[in-house]
Amino acid sequence: MPKTDVDYMKRALRLARKGRGKTSPNPMVGAVIVKNGAVVGEGFHPGPGAPHAEVIALTQAGKRAKGATLYTNLEPCCHTEKRTPPCTDAILKSGLRRVVAAMTDPNPLVSGRGLEQLRKAGVEVTEGVLREAAERLNEVFLKYITTGKPFVILKVAMTLDGRIATAKGSSRWITGEAARLEVHHLRSEVDAVLVGIGTVLADDPMLTARRPGRRNPIRIVIDPDLKIPLKAKLVSSLSEAPTFLITTSSASVEKIRKLEKAGVQVALLPQAKREISFDDIFERLGKAGITSVLIEGGGRVNGMALRSGVVDKVIFYVAPKLLCGDDARSAVAGKAIPSLGEALLLEGVQVQESGGDLRIEGYLKKKERGGRS
Amino acid sequence: MPKTDVDYMKRALRLARKGRGKTSPNPMVGAVIVKNGAVVGEGFHPGPGAPHAEVIALTQAGKRAKGATLYTNLEPCCHTEKRTPPCTDAILKSGLRRVVAAMTDPNPLVSGRGLEQLRKAGVEVTEGVLREAAERLNEVFLKYITTGKPFVILKVAMTLDGRIATAKGSSRWITGEAARLEVHHLRSEVDAVLVGIGTVLADDPMLTARRPGRRNPIRIVIDPDLKIPLKAKLVSSLSEAPTFLITTSSASVEKIRKLEKAGVQVALLPQAKREISFDDIFERLGKAGITSVLIEGGGRVNGMALRSGVVDKVIFYVAPKLLCGDDARSAVAGKAIPSLGEALLLEGVQVQESGGDLRIEGYLKKKERGGRS
Repeated sequence: MPKTDVDYMKRALRLARKGRGKTSPNPMVGAVIVKNGAVVGEGFHPGPGAPHAEVIALTQAGKRAKGATLYTNLEPCCHTEKRTPPCTDAILKSGLRRVVAAMTDPNPLVSGRGLEQLRKAGVEVTEGVLREAAERLNEVFLKYITTGKPFVILKVAMTLDGRIATAKGSSRWITGEAARLEVHHLRSEVDAVLVGIGTVLADDPMLTARRPGRRNPIRIVIDPDLKIPLKAKLVSSLSEAPTFLITTSSASVEKIRKLEKAGVQVALLPQAKREISFDDIFERLGKAGITSVLIEGGGRVNGMALRSGVVDKVIFYVAPKLLCGDDARSAVAGKAIPSLGEALLLEGVQVQESGGDLRIEGYLKKKERGGRS
Repeated sequence: MPKTDVDYMKRALRLARKGRGKTSPNPMVGAVIVKNGAVVGEGFHPGPGAPHAEVIALTQAGKRAKGATLYTNLEPCCHTEKRTPPCTDAILKSGLRRVVAAMTDPNPLVSGRGLEQLRKAGVEVTEGVLREAAERLNEVFLKYITTGKPFVILKVAMTLDGRIATAKGSSRWITGEAARLEVHHLRSEVDAVLVGIGTVLADDPMLTARRPGRRNPIRIVIDPDLKIPLKAKLVSSLSEAPTFLITTSSASVEKIRKLEKAGVQVALLPQAKREISFDDIFERLGKAGITSVLIEGGGRVNGMALRSGVVDKVIFYVAPKLLCGDDARSAVAGKAIPSLGEALLLEGVQVQESGGDLRIEGYLKKKERGGRS
């Protein structure tokens, strides 16, 4: 059976995924060059400063690129304000006859102009093949490049009755090994992990990816009164990854100095509010170049983040067990949304089994909120 | 392709299921008679007092039963202390050559003796084909016949963050229409539905199956202080189904009289305990011939039932929405199990999508309790 555009685009997407966790703040991109039904070149973008996928594939194809078709999950770049030369130039020079892109580049510096340039130069352009899969793959890049704010994932590990810890705060372990390993993978794929001080005091976590060869995320703690102990693992393990504390003016100046001396970065929020503004925090993080944040809070932080509307995606690991009481800690705490009509809604919900636990993930529906009739 | 024992047993199980919701306190049974690769008779047990599945199938097969094979999901009966004659007699009279049963009858009056009788008379007997599916199908009968207590299903309809109502108690609606219709089906399949007085005061529910032609379950309310209003739907709709109140000596004698005059049955528990003993309640219900109970409690009743260990199976409908706070009502309330090692564990967990909601069901693991390492 001759292969179709969809087949080759799937191959490009598979290649793109090889860059997962390494390309930030760049997108994941894969490229496949096909001539007379044979792949003559392919590649993926390995990370910032390295060549783009299209260039790697073109280099591999060499003279065979002439008259061939390029498949890529993202519109080739045409802007020059970056470390590598624009891919559109390389494509035109190579003599490619056709370019198939899954989606246009959401980067306002490109957004359709790359494909337009190719079209004008006589290259046949097809756009939109497997667009949805391509958009999901680069959801982080898409959010960051268009809003300047990080893509926010909120992760919960809870019992089927919604508990993340016993009444005394013990949470080791709700879920099994497979689910916990998945979380370590996830940490290696995001720029930062965020928790509340409650989690630090209860669990003294490392929040690293614990995977050899994988980068660790920056560790962010919301700590309004700066209660973090100087001997917390997040302070003593700065060689593993930076730790970033977000506090308020109610923090002790002396403690700030001690923490900064230890190497911890401390950010003061303008004023101490009753509920810390997650909007402010994420705007700051975005400006600092953080494109994705994984919230692994306790119930209080989870509640504040969800209610403030900053969360893009939730991942709930649900263990097949029951703690059977409301003095055990809730997955999401604080003052609830008062009516079902205003409840936050999820879309694109997917369920997977993970070593006996369930992983339920979905995207927060934006703008429109409401219950079902 | 010639059909196998498994194929015919599947057919017998499908037939058995046609009796769902109608056979209590009898099991669901299907029977298929096969001769030279052709089905010559089949049937299912339609309900108490009606002929057994084997007899219906044998009647249909007539003389063709001679030398044929009977497939049935439950060991044929051999006891005479009931309304219909024993099936083993009919089988022997028919000249069947072989009998394939999925499981032995857990009824202590039968439990292997039916098959033994057939074997002794020269009939070839195979046992255990699709045993697990057969046991699940008749889980209610199996529990009741061996313990004298009803099979208990606990149903919850909650948000992904474990809430069954808003802070003000509104629960209409957490889940969508498809899930709610499934619950109505379920009600028509159990002998009784049980709620707490909190649910009656908050929702004034009918707890009927609302399906034309389907029987309604008996409605049971745990109401220690007899707070149920005389104008509650559960009192005014006695023509639909009986209502049974479980109260304590703290109830007003006058109110008991009024309710009884209205036709409600009132049972007094021996003494007013801090937590009502679900063991006592279910022993009483079992003695009254109730083989299955669906608990549709609020968080308090759910918590008491689960902690007391009477629940056999849970069905959690999980809506893809979040209420984001712990003043909203918990699916399971009360004093939680103190450690993860003692958490209730589920086994045989299954997940299905139901009109955009998830249905997560599982069986409470008996005896052994403990967290994963």
